[in-house]
Amino acid sequence: MLVQGRHFFQGVAPYTLGHKALAVNLSDLAACGARPVAFSLALALPDLDEVWLSDFSAGLFALADAHNCELVGGDTTRGPLNICITVFGEVPLVDGRTQALLRSGAQPGDDLYVSGTVGDARLALDTIEGRLNVPADVLTAALVRLQTPTPRVALGLALRGVATSAIDISDGLLGDLRHILERSGVGAVVNAEETIKSIAAYTNNTRAGGQSVINLSNRQWRQLALAGGDDYELLFTAAPQRRAAVETASLASKTVVRRIGEITREPGLTVLDAQGQPLAEHYASFDHFA
Amino acid sequence: MLVQGRHFFQGVAPYTLGHKALAVNLSDLAACGARPVAFSLALALPDLDEVWLSDFSAGLFALADAHNCELVGGDTTRGPLNICITVFGEVPLVDGRTQALLRSGAQPGDDLYVSGTVGDARLALDTIEGRLNVPADVLTAALVRLQTPTPRVALGLALRGVATSAIDISDGLLGDLRHILERSGVGAVVNAEETIKSIAAYTNNTRAGGQSVINLSNRQWRQLALAGGDDYELLFTAAPQRRAAVETASLASKTVVRRIGEITREPGLTVLDAQGQPLAEHYASFDHFA
Repeated sequence: MLVQGRHFFQGVAPYTLGHKALAVNLSDLAACGARPVAFSLALALPDLDEVWLSDFSAGLFALADAHNCELVGGDTTRGPLNICITVFGEVPLVDGRTQALLRSGAQPGDDLYVSGTVGDARLALDTIEGRLNVPADVLTAALVRLQTPTPRVALGLALRGVATSAIDISDGLLGDLRHILERSGVGAVVNAEETIKSIAAYTNNTRAGGQSVINLSNRQWRQLALAGGDDYELLFTAAPQRRAAVETASLASKTVVRRIGEITREPGLTVLDAQGQPLAEHYASFDHFA
Repeated sequence: MLVQGRHFFQGVAPYTLGHKALAVNLSDLAACGARPVAFSLALALPDLDEVWLSDFSAGLFALADAHNCELVGGDTTRGPLNICITVFGEVPLVDGRTQALLRSGAQPGDDLYVSGTVGDARLALDTIEGRLNVPADVLTAALVRLQTPTPRVALGLALRGVATSAIDISDGLLGDLRHILERSGVGAVVNAEETIKSIAAYTNNTRAGGQSVINLSNRQWRQLALAGGDDYELLFTAAPQRRAAVETASLASKTVVRRIGEITREPGLTVLDAQGQPLAEHYASFDHFA
C-alpha cells in the first residue's frame, strides 16, 4: 500500500509511480524466488484525472508486461491517493519441498551478498529534500533508482537452490538484514567499506580521477548504503562452497552481486570499518509509523 | 478498498468496521460460489491507536474464523484511514469446467432471485444522514444490516450447478443486475412489489396490524429495495425447471431467497408495479466517483 506524502510525493510523475507501485511488489516476489503470475490493483483517487490515469497505467503495464504479470482484479474509488497492489507468484515444489527463498535459512558461516546498487535512492531523496547537495547529473542518475527501481526477479529465480535465505531491501540494508537474522536465529558481520562500493554515486565519485564531485564523509556514505532504504535490491546468504553457483546466478540474471559480509553463530549485528574495527554508529531504518 | 468518509464514517465502531471490511470481500466470493481460503490486509492508519486496532482485529477475525479464512499477508503504513483486503477463494473444476458462478450465464426465461433482505442498509444510512425519520428500534435493526452485513457464502456454495448467473448487491439491486444483463446479453423484468417485500423494515411495518410506524410512499420503498446499495445479498438467476433445487439450496444454506423477476431475450430492464405496469422511475446506483 503506497500512500501519497509517505511513499511518494504529490506531483510525482504518474508513469514512474505506476512503475514503482508494481516494482516494489515484484521485488517481494523476487526475494522469494517466485515467478510473477498476476496482480490485483486497488486505487483510491482524489478525482478522475484521465491523463494522470493513462500515464500511471502506462508505467504500470510496461513493467507488468515485461514480467508476464497479468492484472486480474481490483477496485477503484474516490479518496486520498492510495495505491494497493497484491501480487501473486509461484514457486515449484520439488520432492514435496518448496523452492521458495525464505528469511529463515541463513546458516553460520554463510556469505552475505547484496545485488545491484544501494544507497542511491536515498541520495536522491536527501538531495530533493535539501539535506544533501549533489551535481545535477548525479541527482538525475540517483533519481532513476528512487523512481524506477528494478525488481530483481531474474536473480531471485536464479538463486533458487543456491541462496539459503533472502529478503529485498525496502527499509534499509541493516534493518532488513535483521529480519533474516531474527528468523534464522543467527548474527552477522557486515563489511561497511565493501558495502559502500555498491553505491553507484560513490563508485562514480571515486573513479573521477581523484577529483571528487560529491563531498560526503565515510560515515555519510555508510548511512546511505546501510540504512538508505527504497533500494529494492536482494540481500541474500549462501554457503561459501556455493560461490561459483552465486556467480553463475549473477551472470544468468545479468545482475551484479557483491559479497559484503558473513553470517555468525552468535546473534547480533556487527558493522566493521576498513580496518576491521567494529563501528558503533546507529543506522535507523525507515519506520512506517515515525 | 474502503476509504473513510466514503465507505464508512469517521468514528464508526472499529469492531463492526473490521467485520464489514472482510464481509464485503467474502460477499464477492459468495457471488462466485467460491469457498473462502485466505485474505491479505493492507491498512493505512492515521496513527497507532492500540485500542482501535484491537477492536478492529476482533471484528475482522471473528468473521474470518467463522469462514476458516486465514490472514496470509499484508501491509501497514501511516496515512489517511484506508482498508484494502484481497480475498482468495477456490472453486472446483468438474470435467475441466469451472463450477464458479459467473455474471455471464443468465438465459432468457430464467427466474431472477434475491437473497435475504435488501434496502434496510440504505434505510439506516438515510436515517443517520437525516433524509429519513424512523423509530429507534427500526433504525437499530437496520443498522445491523448496514454495519455487519452477512456474506452469503453458504448460499453461493449451494447454488453451484443450480444458478446460471450471480452477483452480489453492493451498489444497488438494479445497478448490479445490469452487470448480469450486459455480460449475459439479455434483459430482465423486475417485479417491484415483490422486491420491496425483501425489505425487513417494510415487512415488519406492514405486519404491525394496520398501524404503520414508518410512513414511506411506495416509491420510496422501491428506491430502497431497488437502488439502496450496501446490501451484500446475492442476486442470481436459475432456470424455472430448477425451482426445487433453488429451494433446496436456500434450505441447506439457511438463507431466504425470493423470486423477483425474469430474464428476457430482448435487452433492457423493465420494472413493473403491482398492476404489472412498467414504472418510469430512475434508480441511481452508488457511483464510486460521484
